[in-house]
Amino acid sequence: MQNLDSFFNPQSIAVIGASRTQGKVGYTILENIKLTFKGKIYPINPNTTEIMGLNCFPSVLSIKEPIDLAVIAVPAEEVHKVLEECIGKKIRSIIIIASGFSEIGEKELELKLKDISKGKSRIIGPNCLGIYQKNLDTMFLPIERLKRPFEGSISFISQSGAVGSALIDVIANEGVGISKFISIGNRVDVSEIELLEYLGKDLNTRAIALYIESIADGKDFVEVAKKITKKKPVVAFKAGKTHKGSEAVASHTGSLAGEAEIYSAGFKQAGIIEAESLEDIFDFSKALASQPAMKDNKIAIVTDGGGFGIVGTDAAIKLGLELPRLSSESEKSLKNILPKYGVYHNPIDLTGDATSERYHKVLDVVFKDKNISGVIVMVLFQVPLLGDDIIDVLRDCKIYGKPFVVCSAGGSWVQEKNRKLEGFGIPVYPMPERGIRALWSLYEYGQILKRK
Amino acid sequence: MQNLDSFFNPQSIAVIGASRTQGKVGYTILENIKLTFKGKIYPINPNTTEIMGLNCFPSVLSIKEPIDLAVIAVPAEEVHKVLEECIGKKIRSIIIIASGFSEIGEKELELKLKDISKGKSRIIGPNCLGIYQKNLDTMFLPIERLKRPFEGSISFISQSGAVGSALIDVIANEGVGISKFISIGNRVDVSEIELLEYLGKDLNTRAIALYIESIADGKDFVEVAKKITKKKPVVAFKAGKTHKGSEAVASHTGSLAGEAEIYSAGFKQAGIIEAESLEDIFDFSKALASQPAMKDNKIAIVTDGGGFGIVGTDAAIKLGLELPRLSSESEKSLKNILPKYGVYHNPIDLTGDATSERYHKVLDVVFKDKNISGVIVMVLFQVPLLGDDIIDVLRDCKIYGKPFVVCSAGGSWVQEKNRKLEGFGIPVYPMPERGIRALWSLYEYGQILKRK
Repeated sequence: MQNLDSFFNPQSIAVIGASRTQGKVGYTILENIKLTFKGKIYPINPNTTEIMGLNCFPSVLSIKEPIDLAVIAVPAEEVHKVLEECIGKKIRSIIIIASGFSEIGEKELELKLKDISKGKSRIIGPNCLGIYQKNLDTMFLPIERLKRPFEGSISFISQSGAVGSALIDVIANEGVGISKFISIGNRVDVSEIELLEYLGKDLNTRAIALYIESIADGKDFVEVAKKITKKKPVVAFKAGKTHKGSEAVASHTGSLAGEAEIYSAGFKQAGIIEAESLEDIFDFSKALASQPAMKDNKIAIVTDGGGFGIVGTDAAIKLGLELPRLSSESEKSLKNILPKYGVYHNPIDLTGDATSERYHKVLDVVFKDKNISGVIVMVLFQVPLLGDDIIDVLRDCKIYGKPFVVCSAGGSWVQEKNRKLEGFGIPVYPMPERGIRALWSLYEYGQILKRK
Repeated sequence: MQNLDSFFNPQSIAVIGASRTQGKVGYTILENIKLTFKGKIYPINPNTTEIMGLNCFPSVLSIKEPIDLAVIAVPAEEVHKVLEECIGKKIRSIIIIASGFSEIGEKELELKLKDISKGKSRIIGPNCLGIYQKNLDTMFLPIERLKRPFEGSISFISQSGAVGSALIDVIANEGVGISKFISIGNRVDVSEIELLEYLGKDLNTRAIALYIESIADGKDFVEVAKKITKKKPVVAFKAGKTHKGSEAVASHTGSLAGEAEIYSAGFKQAGIIEAESLEDIFDFSKALASQPAMKDNKIAIVTDGGGFGIVGTDAAIKLGLELPRLSSESEKSLKNILPKYGVYHNPIDLTGDATSERYHKVLDVVFKDKNISGVIVMVLFQVPLLGDDIIDVLRDCKIYGKPFVVCSAGGSWVQEKNRKLEGFGIPVYPMPERGIRALWSLYEYGQILKRK
């Protein structure tokens, strides 16, 4: 089987079904490829000779130069014909965007795609968005409507285009980076398993996230994932966990969803961290991509809002994390740093008149404490005496080499600060419970690494 | 006992400890009161004669006119003296901001406050932020840092100032309105119970939210809440549920947190809907404040992204909600409206080429269907063919009189649309699981109303 590299590193792309009409799928895809891709682009449309300033061709067969990747943006009923032409043209990688295949019961129509390609080309899709990476964007969602993330180290495979792209929009807005996003749709050929293998070897990918409704081959999946999770963390969310939910899966990506318990057991066996909500997918991934694994369950909570400390403590204890006492030496230091009304035992409360300096001094003690293996810093940026240099204080916590996350709740002023932190590779969460879950995922990955 | 009205409708306010120094608590409080309060304001500070263009007085005793409300913004050790003066001046309502009382073990210092007032005045605090409402803002958090919500119909009582104010910031950013926010701190006098009673009668409050670490008097609380929940919904979050968490409560608001199970049982008995996370507090409240209760558990999911429908279905089933089939008549209509690749059975999928018109036609069928008692509309606004008029389509769903919520995930472009919907009184959620939980809260309140 050919490898997948020409999907991610093509030199030339044909956009079949490219359109001059704004709003059409074939328009937006061409526009987004043109915005991102630096190689040669060939719009294909028999009814025109030029689109967006590019020479347009009636068919890929009328192009003399070799083509590495074809993005097929014609309706389902026209796909077979153009696919045949792509195979004739020896295009190795093909993305089929159209829906209207097995997800609406048209199994035959879908299987014929395989018959046509006869393994000569690799196909992503149909019923998908294709690929997003910094230098290749095949999504048909306009850039004015859906933000694109900057380059980062998380790669994301999604069986649902809608869920995948919406999450991409959400995290782009948070300032989180992405290496590759692949919307696999009905996966007539390229599956999550092969992509997992590819991303496992990808040097730009530090953590892999998965949204799946079903798995092509459970045994294969576990075997492949087992090897990868020894080297990099994998987070997976399984949709269609209830009977009613799995019925809905059949009408979505034309696949059969198995029992939730079987999936959970498989994930566990494979060393995959299971996401329990859509939020978990990136909450976990961004921590895992930026932070070292946590060696045990001993965490410290540092906050300037007592209530957040309490809510975080509850969440931590429920997940099996521990809040040990700091060493007596550390406690002594903290007593000296904090005002009388501060709280020097874990969860540590700097109170509402906290300054950046107080945070700096306290964090230096906490991070260096041998009883503590991971830290969540909860910052209510809104308090009046906290200067902008709190960002530097938090950024500099990276030098301690211990896993940590930040919790910061608030509106647009706060969110601007959160984006800055994300830019420094510090994962930020808007609620204490979510921050604690992320810290837990770092502990969980530490346990997974130990198992091996 | 005097009633609480002069806290919320004072004609004149003294700000004791008002300061000329930016960043100081006494500066920000005076600034925020000045920005919001239309009555007479008296800054009190013995060291100056004018602050922010207002005449400044050495003590409340040097003011001839009557004063309805005093906000005490001096450090803990000076509170007793100024409190005595307030009592001497016959100020009926007093907010004490300072921390440094029972939450750090200074029980005596706190009890003395009661001794001084001898029930002649009512006290909110100490260790609190006081009150936020459209025409009275005593919070010491600068308005540039922490957004204030517009006037709405949710009132919120919080034992934690940090949690309370951060949530206020979050929901202000979402475009959700607030009637009253009261940060009660150590509640030496006015408790959540009395406030609950007050808000129960408040015509501007349609739903009440509570963040509590402990309850002043459990039996009283249940009795009072029982009556209120017959008329309006109450949502409560209990912090300090674990043993470790409740230890942290003692150092926060100086109160003893009881067993989580006892609280849950009490909430149930009182007809209160329990929030399981900080997010739940407003996710539930904004649905309950704007939507009718749901008469049974039969919901429909309408989406333009199949994956969202599946995730929503799983979440709904887990919470005991049902997704019944629509009537055969409705299904027939939907078949005619939807393209071949759409899904007309519940969860209904309009697919990624959905238009506002398609949403309008489908929603008209779904809302009118007798099998359906509540609806979650999931909209991926980012899809290319969806026009701005989708907002009108969603707004107009109010005419059906059935409870509904919207789920809309995305970045800044999407969030702008979400804020518009919130402005129309339509609750919007960024993730399907949260939207479903909110719909569940409407069902839960329906069940509570039936019990009585």
